[in-house]
Amino acid sequence: MSVIGAVTLTKDRYYVHPNALVESTEIGPGTMIWAFAHVMRGAQIGANCKIGDHAFIESGAVLGNHVTVKNGVAVWDRVTVEDNVFLGPNCVLTNDLNPRTYIQKGGDSLTPTLIRANATIGANVTVVCGVTIGRYAFIGAGAVVIRSVPDFALVVGNPARQIGWMCICAEKLPLPASAPADTQVSCPHCHVRFTVTDEGLSVLEETLTSKGA
Amino acid sequence: MSVIGAVTLTKDRYYVHPNALVESTEIGPGTMIWAFAHVMRGAQIGANCKIGDHAFIESGAVLGNHVTVKNGVAVWDRVTVEDNVFLGPNCVLTNDLNPRTYIQKGGDSLTPTLIRANATIGANVTVVCGVTIGRYAFIGAGAVVIRSVPDFALVVGNPARQIGWMCICAEKLPLPASAPADTQVSCPHCHVRFTVTDEGLSVLEETLTSKGA
Amino acid sequence: MSVIGAVTLTKDRYYVHPNALVESTEIGPGTMIWAFAHVMRGAQIGANCKIGDHAFIESGAVLGNHVTVKNGVAVWDRVTVEDNVFLGPNCVLTNDLNPRTYIQKGGDSLTPTLIRANATIGANVTVVCGVTIGRYAFIGAGAVVIRSVPDFALVVGNPARQIGWMCICAEKLPLPASAPADTQVSCPHCHVRFTVTDEGLSVLEETLTSKGA
Repeated sequence: MSVIGAVTLTKDRYYVHPNALVESTEIGPGTMIWAFAHVMRGAQIGANCKIGDHAFIESGAVLGNHVTVKNGVAVWDRVTVEDNVFLGPNCVLTNDLNPRTYIQKGGDSLTPTLIRANATIGANVTVVCGVTIGRYAFIGAGAVVIRSVPDFALVVGNPARQIGWMCICAEKLPLPASAPADTQVSCPHCHVRFTVTDEGLSVLEETLTSKGA
Repeated sequence: MSVIGAVTLTKDRYYVHPNALVESTEIGPGTMIWAFAHVMRGAQIGANCKIGDHAFIESGAVLGNHVTVKNGVAVWDRVTVEDNVFLGPNCVLTNDLNPRTYIQKGGDSLTPTLIRANATIGANVTVVCGVTIGRYAFIGAGAVVIRSVPDFALVVGNPARQIGWMCICAEKLPLPASAPADTQVSCPHCHVRFTVTDEGLSVLEETLTSKGA
Repeated sequence: MSVIGAVTLTKDRYYVHPNALVESTEIGPGTMIWAFAHVMRGAQIGANCKIGDHAFIESGAVLGNHVTVKNGVAVWDRVTVEDNVFLGPNCVLTNDLNPRTYIQKGGDSLTPTLIRANATIGANVTVVCGVTIGRYAFIGAGAVVIRSVPDFALVVGNPARQIGWMCICAEKLPLPASAPADTQVSCPHCHVRFTVTDEGLSVLEETLTSKGA
């Protein structure tokens, strides 16, 4: 047992609120799990994550390090969330493309979802399973994502469509969504430079100065 | 008391998680109620239902048999859910068409909703009260339903509009949403045959082979 | 301790369900806080509010009197909710316009939201922070609000757009959303009269008869 401020940690140095229910032992140090959250046995959670009130992490879900899971979010079996992802309040993930109560599914009959590092999933977003959300992609609040999202893409609406690009520094880039491959752009705020690729934007490393990258 | 696997059942043979709060006694055998769910006194739940974490079933709500209520769903007074319905995670039902805090409503001043047997309500769907969701209807994730939905209809968007038809077997049928009455179609996957009626699709029983029907 | 019906009140005459978690002491008389709700230290809640199951009221949130917070709603730091507001089930508020997990924000770097008196936020609505929801505004179920909403405006959709005006009595007014300033209208139901102003509708006081005003 150790104490940081008013918070008492487990021997593995993560924090479980007295009103939370944690059945997994695969939780990294520095992670905090808040009231009425439920982490099931076998769920994997990295270090320094924040699991908000009323969140649910199912057996088979995998979260990297520094992931923020805001209140009311459920992360299901077959959902993989890489490092530094933000899952906004009440955003909804899924693992069954076409559920019917009378058709039992489990294991490999479920459909995986991959949320790549540093992506932001906005408040109350719905992510239909089977997609990959690219690195640093930004899904605007209330969007309904039904197809994969490129790296750094900014998408909004129902169904979600791309309306631009979002920088590492969380400012919108001066680049149209339809910019052709090899177009280059520099962020007016943090001065990171990017080029358009087949997978979205790619950072031109030599100019990289942002601490967030 | 009886035990199935690691699960201890009540004398009426349903399961209540130790962290759930169940005040109703009208619950059928085989039903399972999970952590942080709350079932109020007088709520009616049939047999073999699954009530997920953080769900709320209000007094006056009626659920049939084999209903799946995923996490975070509230089923209110005056909502009737027939057998084999799937209520996706964080889908939202309602019972007041035009709420104002200073206008008290209850009992018959609330507006009913009927979700007919075998329907699927997708993740994060919103259902505005006063509608009937037809048998085997499929409401796509994130849709906002503001009018009744025919049997077997597939609807998506905000507001929800019909884009096709969904088979018993959960595959989309090769039939346009606007198909006129008496049009017939056969499912390429399960070979069930349907005809278009005023209420949506109707199964032509003589060809029925699906186990799901 | 005092008892109203079957309900036991605190010495400050508000009610806390045994399964709720309440850490604030700034709660007005007559307020009721239901199961699995969590009110953090420093959250301010007025008199006669209803805080539903699985709701979360964060330190720094401010709620007036007679506010209804339905199930699953989180009210964050920097969100101000005036008297008589209705927050529908699973509606989602926010306080960070462009979240990235690796960019820490707090205090003044958060973006405030103001929900003015008597407004209705429908079920599963998303409110992007930085906006003001006007007095008596009515946000239809499932809407995604990305800009401020005038007094008495009725808005729906993703993104939310104004489609009309909603009376104090919760009936739609016979007035187009685009009505020019100084247009007058009378509610066919409750006979309150309004005029169009730069901030939405304004009640012509001399004709006011509604008890709701």
